[in-house]
Amino acid sequence: MALDPSRTVAELKELRELTGDENGAQRVAWTETWERARSWLREKVAPTGAEHEIDEAGNQWFTLRGASERALLIGGHMDSVPNGGWLDGCLNVLAGVEVLRRIAEEGTPPLTVRLVDWADEEGARFGRSLFGSSAAAGSMADQDELRQRRDANGIALPDALREHGVELDRALEARRQLENAAAYLELHIEQGPVLESLDLPLGVVLGTFGVERHQITWRGQAAHAGSTPMDKRRDALAGAAKLALEIRAIAAEVGGGAVCTSGGVVCKPGIVTSVVETAEQLLDQRHLDAASLARLLALAKEASERFAREESLEVEWERIWSIEPILFDERLIELADESIREVCGTSHRLPSGPLHDAAEVARAGVPTVMLFVQSLRGLSHTKLEDTREEHLELAVQALDRLATKALRAFAA
Amino acid sequence: MALDPSRTVAELKELRELTGDENGAQRVAWTETWERARSWLREKVAPTGAEHEIDEAGNQWFTLRGASERALLIGGHMDSVPNGGWLDGCLNVLAGVEVLRRIAEEGTPPLTVRLVDWADEEGARFGRSLFGSSAAAGSMADQDELRQRRDANGIALPDALREHGVELDRALEARRQLENAAAYLELHIEQGPVLESLDLPLGVVLGTFGVERHQITWRGQAAHAGSTPMDKRRDALAGAAKLALEIRAIAAEVGGGAVCTSGGVVCKPGIVTSVVETAEQLLDQRHLDAASLARLLALAKEASERFAREESLEVEWERIWSIEPILFDERLIELADESIREVCGTSHRLPSGPLHDAAEVARAGVPTVMLFVQSLRGLSHTKLEDTREEHLELAVQALDRLATKALRAFAA
Repeated sequence: MALDPSRTVAELKELRELTGDENGAQRVAWTETWERARSWLREKVAPTGAEHEIDEAGNQWFTLRGASERALLIGGHMDSVPNGGWLDGCLNVLAGVEVLRRIAEEGTPPLTVRLVDWADEEGARFGRSLFGSSAAAGSMADQDELRQRRDANGIALPDALREHGVELDRALEARRQLENAAAYLELHIEQGPVLESLDLPLGVVLGTFGVERHQITWRGQAAHAGSTPMDKRRDALAGAAKLALEIRAIAAEVGGGAVCTSGGVVCKPGIVTSVVETAEQLLDQRHLDAASLARLLALAKEASERFAREESLEVEWERIWSIEPILFDERLIELADESIREVCGTSHRLPSGPLHDAAEVARAGVPTVMLFVQSLRGLSHTKLEDTREEHLELAVQALDRLATKALRAFAA
Repeated sequence: MALDPSRTVAELKELRELTGDENGAQRVAWTETWERARSWLREKVAPTGAEHEIDEAGNQWFTLRGASERALLIGGHMDSVPNGGWLDGCLNVLAGVEVLRRIAEEGTPPLTVRLVDWADEEGARFGRSLFGSSAAAGSMADQDELRQRRDANGIALPDALREHGVELDRALEARRQLENAAAYLELHIEQGPVLESLDLPLGVVLGTFGVERHQITWRGQAAHAGSTPMDKRRDALAGAAKLALEIRAIAAEVGGGAVCTSGGVVCKPGIVTSVVETAEQLLDQRHLDAASLARLLALAKEASERFAREESLEVEWERIWSIEPILFDERLIELADESIREVCGTSHRLPSGPLHDAAEVARAGVPTVMLFVQSLRGLSHTKLEDTREEHLELAVQALDRLATKALRAFAA
């Protein structure tokens, strides 16, 4: 039985029928539909003889015993956002299933091979993404806070998890799952426009961006739009506007794939007859290199102070969230590059803007790499999410070749 | 009995006690407190012998018969916004009372002299400002729409007015009040920072600004803040930011006191992880000269189209409201200038950003002028609204001199 990438496409469609509706995928973690997807997955994997297990964090594992206890992990997530796409998360798992079939067919592998369906990557119901992988990585530090979380219907997170057999207090015991991990591979749709713009099916991911996320508050003076001459104004919007434009020059100056986004400005009083007194601006800055990320932030702060002086405003920065860049394994990046070139001629290296379960695994010290397959129009988290079927098949092939190379490299 | 400007200050304080609370003035039109202020005013004027009348639009008139039926009008408004200041509107009326006293004391004036307390200048309860003066001016064109208006408690405007003796359907009959009007004078606090910044107590108002008010909608593409390279973005906020800054250069280019204000930008989806797809921007442009106002608008539209091209956005303009500039009478401007110079040495000519009842009277073809007295910190529509008492007294003197000059000029 050879690798059959078209089967992956067929199974993706079968899953879509089983767990989606006219609004898209509905496999939200800790729901019946999600459980249905996981049962279906278990049936699909059963013929390979891989052992099935659900760990303390709700992660679903399929283990194919090899010559060594050290394990090659291939992962993804069956859960989706509400009204999600047909690929985000489950492509990764179903491509892994096909690779597992091919390896099982060939006899005992040199390393144990494990397929993992991480629990609640999206965090759609309780707003906590990467639940299962962060538990396994030992980086889940917010359990006290999670105990208080409730969904839109007021159901507490620990109660919802218990209904699916997971005790929050024991979730970190899932850490044992990574003890023998030799390497971790994950395929994902890009969820961005880069590969499409380069007309390339596949790329290798260098790591996930570090993120600096701030709210910047500009304070000026409300004043009547009719009675206040232009030179007597302290317009908070002017500060926010200058920074919204300047971050583009800053990203260009720092380079190396830097992205800076001002996702919104809230103006107060926000009425047509008043100069803006307060502008609350959101800023998201990302870079794969920690020093460059720090420079993005420093340059933006410097610019904001200059603009505050120019406009006679006060400016204040408040950090909302930050995370350091997480770099993937250089050896695996090389192997992934080779695999992609073998399958489709040309490869491309790119960072990942969004976080993924792979980032948690990498943080835990497991050599990790990801493959990206082209997303049409960069769309995801919507039923409009799509990738050409020929590209999906190439992705399965590339993941399979990467698994073979990784087994060889890490068994040595 | 000579003019006693300090009495005006004392009466302003008396009115504040009678109709204000710890949050400020509460003389909202069509309320009991407003009626109390109007009864109090009637008692104050009674000793002058002026005839009292409430017209079909609720305007309160005090008429001192003169040698001619042609009338010099002096006006203001007793109504305030909720939590308003102690001067906005009632200073105008009470200064007029003092002038009326002085004229009455001197015997029959050459023209009839009428003091008017316009009904509902602020529009605080039903959102329709300049109610009484627009009825008298015959420019109230929105009666059908007004019939549908309700206050925050769901009470319909016609019902509320009826409780105060006003039938909306008959309001336009108030037009007869301006039939014999020879000239109209109004004193008001500046509600802006110009006179304070020049360290001048008083100024003469050239007219009220024409206004062009638009909502500008910028449309780009929502995109993930992490996965979308800078050169692949269509950021709607960039268009709004460029225009928010450019309107300042446009105002400077057109000159002549032009003001342009972007009072707010609403970003959608407005979240930290997404490039802004839609930015809805408010723009208010004002000028005293119609051609200059048209140029302000044309330059902003031109700039917006340039920015849309630069940023690959769509841009759409929707007019919210507009009004042409209303110029005051040149002869009266000269007389007002003289009066101010006589009282305090230096005068200053400035436009009015806000509209006033005087604008409605001027639109109706009555020669009109306004005096502005300095506002501390430019504040109004708040209990923090203030003017130095010595300036209030100078204002009463200047209005009195202007009334004398106007009586002489228009009787001739």
